[in-house]
Amino acid sequence: MKKGVMRPGHIQLRVLDMEEALAHYRDLIGLIEMDRDEQGRVYLKGWSEIDKFSVVLREADQPGLDYLSFKCVDEATVDKLRTELINHGCTVEDIPAGELKDCGRRVRFDTPTGHKFELFATKEQTGKWGINPINPEAWPEGLKGMKAVRFDHALLYGPNIAGTAEIFINILGFDLAEQVVNADEAGIANFLTCSCKAHDLAFIECPEPGKLHHASFLLETWDDVLRAADLISMRDVSIDIGPTRHGLTHGKTIYFFDPSGNRSEVFCGGDYHYPDHPTVTWHEEQLGKAIFYHDRVLNERFLTVLT
Amino acid sequence: MKKGVMRPGHIQLRVLDMEEALAHYRDLIGLIEMDRDEQGRVYLKGWSEIDKFSVVLREADQPGLDYLSFKCVDEATVDKLRTELINHGCTVEDIPAGELKDCGRRVRFDTPTGHKFELFATKEQTGKWGINPINPEAWPEGLKGMKAVRFDHALLYGPNIAGTAEIFINILGFDLAEQVVNADEAGIANFLTCSCKAHDLAFIECPEPGKLHHASFLLETWDDVLRAADLISMRDVSIDIGPTRHGLTHGKTIYFFDPSGNRSEVFCGGDYHYPDHPTVTWHEEQLGKAIFYHDRVLNERFLTVLT
Amino acid sequence: MKKGVMRPGHIQLRVLDMEEALAHYRDLIGLIEMDRDEQGRVYLKGWSEIDKFSVVLREADQPGLDYLSFKCVDEATVDKLRTELINHGCTVEDIPAGELKDCGRRVRFDTPTGHKFELFATKEQTGKWGINPINPEAWPEGLKGMKAVRFDHALLYGPNIAGTAEIFINILGFDLAEQVVNADEAGIANFLTCSCKAHDLAFIECPEPGKLHHASFLLETWDDVLRAADLISMRDVSIDIGPTRHGLTHGKTIYFFDPSGNRSEVFCGGDYHYPDHPTVTWHEEQLGKAIFYHDRVLNERFLTVLT
Amino acid sequence: MKKGVMRPGHIQLRVLDMEEALAHYRDLIGLIEMDRDEQGRVYLKGWSEIDKFSVVLREADQPGLDYLSFKCVDEATVDKLRTELINHGCTVEDIPAGELKDCGRRVRFDTPTGHKFELFATKEQTGKWGINPINPEAWPEGLKGMKAVRFDHALLYGPNIAGTAEIFINILGFDLAEQVVNADEAGIANFLTCSCKAHDLAFIECPEPGKLHHASFLLETWDDVLRAADLISMRDVSIDIGPTRHGLTHGKTIYFFDPSGNRSEVFCGGDYHYPDHPTVTWHEEQLGKAIFYHDRVLNERFLTVLT
Repeated sequence: MKKGVMRPGHIQLRVLDMEEALAHYRDLIGLIEMDRDEQGRVYLKGWSEIDKFSVVLREADQPGLDYLSFKCVDEATVDKLRTELINHGCTVEDIPAGELKDCGRRVRFDTPTGHKFELFATKEQTGKWGINPINPEAWPEGLKGMKAVRFDHALLYGPNIAGTAEIFINILGFDLAEQVVNADEAGIANFLTCSCKAHDLAFIECPEPGKLHHASFLLETWDDVLRAADLISMRDVSIDIGPTRHGLTHGKTIYFFDPSGNRSEVFCGGDYHYPDHPTVTWHEEQLGKAIFYHDRVLNERFLTVLT
Repeated sequence: MKKGVMRPGHIQLRVLDMEEALAHYRDLIGLIEMDRDEQGRVYLKGWSEIDKFSVVLREADQPGLDYLSFKCVDEATVDKLRTELINHGCTVEDIPAGELKDCGRRVRFDTPTGHKFELFATKEQTGKWGINPINPEAWPEGLKGMKAVRFDHALLYGPNIAGTAEIFINILGFDLAEQVVNADEAGIANFLTCSCKAHDLAFIECPEPGKLHHASFLLETWDDVLRAADLISMRDVSIDIGPTRHGLTHGKTIYFFDPSGNRSEVFCGGDYHYPDHPTVTWHEEQLGKAIFYHDRVLNERFLTVLT
Repeated sequence: MKKGVMRPGHIQLRVLDMEEALAHYRDLIGLIEMDRDEQGRVYLKGWSEIDKFSVVLREADQPGLDYLSFKCVDEATVDKLRTELINHGCTVEDIPAGELKDCGRRVRFDTPTGHKFELFATKEQTGKWGINPINPEAWPEGLKGMKAVRFDHALLYGPNIAGTAEIFINILGFDLAEQVVNADEAGIANFLTCSCKAHDLAFIECPEPGKLHHASFLLETWDDVLRAADLISMRDVSIDIGPTRHGLTHGKTIYFFDPSGNRSEVFCGGDYHYPDHPTVTWHEEQLGKAIFYHDRVLNERFLTVLT
Repeated sequence: MKKGVMRPGHIQLRVLDMEEALAHYRDLIGLIEMDRDEQGRVYLKGWSEIDKFSVVLREADQPGLDYLSFKCVDEATVDKLRTELINHGCTVEDIPAGELKDCGRRVRFDTPTGHKFELFATKEQTGKWGINPINPEAWPEGLKGMKAVRFDHALLYGPNIAGTAEIFINILGFDLAEQVVNADEAGIANFLTCSCKAHDLAFIECPEPGKLHHASFLLETWDDVLRAADLISMRDVSIDIGPTRHGLTHGKTIYFFDPSGNRSEVFCGGDYHYPDHPTVTWHEEQLGKAIFYHDRVLNERFLTVLT
């Protein structure tokens, strides 16, 4: 949080059919439905999140990512970073307060990878779902499906991840926690963090701009990852891979698909990062192991199935 | 144990190179090396096993299974079952006491699937490894690798599994705990138990006789299955699939290969079976899910890579 | 199962208030309510159990155990054991089929410890709750509370546990899997099994006859034991001790109380037993560690709070 | 990290006998012995820590805490905070580089609770123990005992925790993540964080100054907490309480004692904190549950056994 950016605040995803999407994000992954708006967008969050929402679903003709928004410590930070982004040459758009329900104004900007990101500092805080703020219990009863703890991060694909990393590192104060480099020492995967997590945001180099690889949700334990895998089978959901471990971050994971084709991840554990930690580096010839630590080979979908 | 057969007592496996095999079974899987004999065979067991050994490795030109031996409650039971096997038409061979070190006489017989099995009742009992029999601790310190709890079962491939099942069920008192049937209701996989486990022995129909699919070792928890998977990668061992769950038995599992090409499994959990329980049935069109519950498709190796 | 006794089939417990009891056994422990009868008794079971019920609650003025019933492989076994019990001098009572709904006739007998036990062979089989018998999923959705897998065993207190053990071992074919002996090598705790579990029934010597220490329900994992402990706090239930491990059987456990004062246990894991295994012995001077492996001292309630 | 303080960098503990202490911290908890110095101090760390050491043991006549040192992002931050501490009225002492081996200069200051703390920015980085920095494996083989991941935090007792909290919050940029307040809304326990953890440092109000309640080490899973509890019994170490969960932070925990009487904790999991999160509050009448979530009562040792 060197520059005051705290965490991924919300992600807006496009889905082809809202009811099918809710069966996925709410009933399977276990996010809490918090609100809906006049546009028909649905707002959700994981039970441990203090802010009112962290996932916004929008019905559209094409799946994929609308934008990913980061929460800053205060409005002054948003102002300051807005100026720096403009000075850097980013196209910046001001989204007024209320465009998302119960959320303050957002500063939207684009990156060389072709994605839209936002900064904001104000959102209604409803507290942990189902938990009394005084003498709080360990977890709420009544959670559904995989009982996701929180929206955690996203992995995006696009061109010029070096240019995008420059924005996140130099302007927004992120660290390059982990990377994959090719034989020329050029980064082909960048894992960026603004906190002590191994990643709040990650990029893989790819010619096509603006692509979403997956949105990721935190679970508590490896037992929960197993139960998530079981639910994927029991409800006949399309699985990509897992349960397994990543080499990068060493998180324990499953990938699967929402009904619109957007990839979801649920995971637990993984490495931590402090600002004085050197970047963890994987070499491209070990890319299989870096991604899927146990199989040590990529499946064909990992590099090609994107939304 | 309707007829006095208690459990798989030991399995003799052929390996191409003993030192490489010990790196696998002793140092990776974590079996305890208990003894060696004049033929150069090495005797091992899981730490929780009371008898002196449960795995015998024999160096040979071809990998695979020599035989799987079941322990009976007493010698009278061995005599009685020997007679019944002969009456059924099995070829029976008497192996004298001492042929395996510290093991009594064994009665060897063959089955339509082309495998050799044995019955015996006497073996030296050395107690749980590293555990005092009085006021015993929960587990021993000093275990290696995956810390296998015990040798648990084997899956074998061969022709006429119905004929072999008849021997195990009608003569030896096993139950058919689980099965896969084809559209004609004919069994293509039989999971047989002589105890309350979902399987002490399993067969899959296959034209080639006498084949070994895998020997399986019990771990304690799903966390241990993860650590086993990690070790497989860390030591660059050939993995087949996992961590995952089986549909059949619902055990949590990994398959991987010893340096000779024999498949090993480590697993935990799974269903229990009592004699009054109906046979659990899977249909062939769900074979993928029956075997690999999460992926719901077989990998190409499952039906073809055998030793 | 040397003599055809398979497992604890059902336990009938007395509770002071049925609705409060159901909040405990059904909503907290997670047993499934299967039926009620004209007497107002409520029938429950764990989801994995094939038979229709395993727990019967009866409203009464005093809490405690009415009887514990064991299921045999067939009616002929019940007849044979009935005769042996009579010959041994037990008082035997014949309970007609239908006295418990959907359950066949039962043979009730008493023991020196002042408890009533039963043998039966016939009960309606409704299969695993929420699970299709063909291509069965790993577990059912919709379980409540602790999601108990099955009723597993009971620990009873009374005088002359040696005399009671004689009945279970010599007549009913149980093994003495584990024991605590005093300085005179006399057993003060007997853990008896008719299967491969470390105990299907246990006794602790105590002058007062016919007492119940606890009824025990199986959970799947140590994570589930934690969640059970959390629920005990979240619902303000009276806890006895745990999460912890037992020295005897090495199971992982919690003790807590139902609203009538009957102690419940939920646990996972623990040792296995085969008929050729020597009895595991703890010495009385290590009784604290034998019962509560981590604290290594008994709490005052363990020996005195009984129903 | 609002003011550039990153994390607890090291703790110096007094022990009565170094070899006994090493049996505890190195062989039981599983810290790695990294170095020793001419004074006889021993330097250790958890395997995941990048810096060379995080625990320093010093043989002395009395157990307890010498000081706890926090690592800052750079030397300029140390300078700046040093000035602010002096301006606040703290007694500040400059410890030259090299007083601790391979550690730069430290700024030591005292607090109203009677403890000594330090700030520093420079220490040799040796990387994760047993892990290659390129293509790193998930964990190192060869860890001992409880396999502690890292030194995590400490809980201290002393008078005027409000005055000490003022220093950590206003000068050093910590957040008050969690607290216990009495009927007058005065804080009797303060849990402070400079990162996203629920606590990097905690205080409980107590008349006696400068006391240590416990030093805490992170484990990975609840299964590891169980194994830690088992080891405590297997090696006959003095246990305080656990395995259990805290209400405050919701971490899963065990307390036990080193041979000098210093309390140790190993734990896993627990809540996370961001700067915009409101302080989590427990009321004193729920103090038992706040500390020991399952038992809901304090044991007598919690408030009285300190070093």
